Amino acid sequence: MMKELSQIISQIKPVEPEWLAQAQERLDFLTKPPGSLGRLEELAARYVAIRGELFPRLEKKLVVVFAADHGVVAEGVSAFPQEVTPQMVLNFLRGGAGINVLARHVGAAVEVVDIGVKYDFGEQPGLINRKVAPGSRNMAREPALTMEEAVQSVLVGVERARAAIAAGVDALAAGDMGIGNTTPAAALAVVFTGKPASTVTGRGTGIGDDTWRHKVAVINRALELHKPDANEPLEALAKVGGLEIGGIAGLILGGAAARRAVLLDGFIATAGALVAYHLAPAVADYLIAAHRSVEAGHQLMLDALGLKPLLNFQLRLGEGTGAALGLGLLEAGVKIYHEMATFAEAGVAEKQS
Amino acid sequence: MMKELSQIISQIKPVEPEWLAQAQERLDFLTKPPGSLGRLEELAARYVAIRGELFPRLEKKLVVVFAADHGVVAEGVSAFPQEVTPQMVLNFLRGGAGINVLARHVGAAVEVVDIGVKYDFGEQPGLINRKVAPGSRNMAREPALTMEEAVQSVLVGVERARAAIAAGVDALAAGDMGIGNTTPAAALAVVFTGKPASTVTGRGTGIGDDTWRHKVAVINRALELHKPDANEPLEALAKVGGLEIGGIAGLILGGAAARRAVLLDGFIATAGALVAYHLAPAVADYLIAAHRSVEAGHQLMLDALGLKPLLNFQLRLGEGTGAALGLGLLEAGVKIYHEMATFAEAGVAEKQS
Repeated sequence: MMKELSQIISQIKPVEPEWLAQAQERLDFLTKPPGSLGRLEELAARYVAIRGELFPRLEKKLVVVFAADHGVVAEGVSAFPQEVTPQMVLNFLRGGAGINVLARHVGAAVEVVDIGVKYDFGEQPGLINRKVAPGSRNMAREPALTMEEAVQSVLVGVERARAAIAAGVDALAAGDMGIGNTTPAAALAVVFTGKPASTVTGRGTGIGDDTWRHKVAVINRALELHKPDANEPLEALAKVGGLEIGGIAGLILGGAAARRAVLLDGFIATAGALVAYHLAPAVADYLIAAHRSVEAGHQLMLDALGLKPLLNFQLRLGEGTGAALGLGLLEAGVKIYHEMATFAEAGVAEKQS
Repeated sequence: MMKELSQIISQIKPVEPEWLAQAQERLDFLTKPPGSLGRLEELAARYVAIRGELFPRLEKKLVVVFAADHGVVAEGVSAFPQEVTPQMVLNFLRGGAGINVLARHVGAAVEVVDIGVKYDFGEQPGLINRKVAPGSRNMAREPALTMEEAVQSVLVGVERARAAIAAGVDALAAGDMGIGNTTPAAALAVVFTGKPASTVTGRGTGIGDDTWRHKVAVINRALELHKPDANEPLEALAKVGGLEIGGIAGLILGGAAARRAVLLDGFIATAGALVAYHLAPAVADYLIAAHRSVEAGHQLMLDALGLKPLLNFQLRLGEGTGAALGLGLLEAGVKIYHEMATFAEAGVAEKQS
């Protein structure tokens, strides 16, 4: 299992900067002052470099939502009851959740993966059953996952990336569902940014001051108990992470290995990205940060990845909702690159020197 | 002519805050933690309030690009030659410009209005000929427009808004094309924000330091010569404005009078918005600021209107490009409002108190 993971990691290479330069050269021939489309041009050049071809296609887009439960909810860290995780999975399958609406809006498909929900869905059309375990354990008392479960969750993500790419997907987005999952995500933020829990911990789906203080204390207790280390990212994932976070890390690894752009959502997805980054730093070249979440630690996590978010929309829903908006913006940049007329084609005079 | 304008202005009413509250009530029934979709929820509630109905449609979207020339280019304030204005108009008509690509991306139509280009297009299929004059005069030496031309340009914008709404358009966006037009826009920014020209003047399509200093001096010369007054917005438009800026002001007035959302683009469009706002302050309720431009004064102008931009994408192209992206984001918010399942519909448990 570790061998399979090492093999994927060895396939991930940084993008070649020459592609960025070549893409910018074409962008400067288009009928606009050089650089005047700002971040749209940046997105287009990044996409060219990711794909490693001068006119890369961007048609099929997929949001993969990984759903899992968290033993740490026993500590009372969340505003919603645990049964909301399977209820929302069913909502995704019926198309009624935020991610369904936004994915439809940008022309992306949604795939829902049960990677660790504490509920037996039975036969559920459309649901991809890759349950590694029925939720994680309570990290305040024991490691959230065994090492085997942690590695398995990452491999599920890799497998979903491969399946998507085999089906012709051009760009991926990672989403999450899991009541309680801002607690492991904040714990991983401490591990990978080195900031204190009180700095990176937010209010999740909407807890009050007392619950927030308690949540910080729970995170600190787990960190003291397990002493996770940023240099051992899989161990950190096992000790204080969660299964959907592992799945997201794997999707990013699998996407980067196959030179696909992966749109990052908010706090949970970025925790997964940090696990992937500490396994293979070159994944950062394939990541596009869709938005800056309301969650306190998110900007620090993006800084650690060297990523600048596209939107600051005060989102804190997860599911991949921000990433879906990001797919639409990426596509806008790529269409500029493909579809705009050049000065020569349009017979427009260029800038005077 | 003034009577016609006064009549439109009298029709513009502030939105009723009750609609915002009613829309938020529905948003809080949807399967997500309350407020967790941040600015998307804000956009949805704003749209409901603008339309004044609980389930307003958002289907037909139109970007109106007003094109005009500027006598002040004789002072050497622009990086591009004046013939680029008609060349870009032809590029718009052929579908090869940035605004065409981005409007297609968000499913909006583009309308191109010649409101004052210094070029005889003859019969040009698709071009709407409303030429008030063949460009403005050099504001550094004489008023840019006569009062009659200024009022006429605003009325052209009103007429285009009415025509769009008669054709079933739900949301409008205002765009501009006019070599040299960041100079009148900066002059109007001085008039309406009270900040010095050196603070609000930017580099337009890309001028160097010397030309920038010269541009500031030209603006100051025009302001000293004509002494425009924020309390006389039409006179200010005539003295140091331009025809496309007047057209944009009119489109906003006409849109607001008919309770339509108008997406604001960058520096030029916002100069038009400030003219409209000083004629009818309630227009601010109907404006959605799509982005914060690179141009130095833009944020100050948005502040003066009380608007918070959706994107900070380092755009400085104009044409309505940022506004087109804004239409896509507005639609995302409105779809969330219309299409997401409620807690009751989806059988999802609500937040614990």
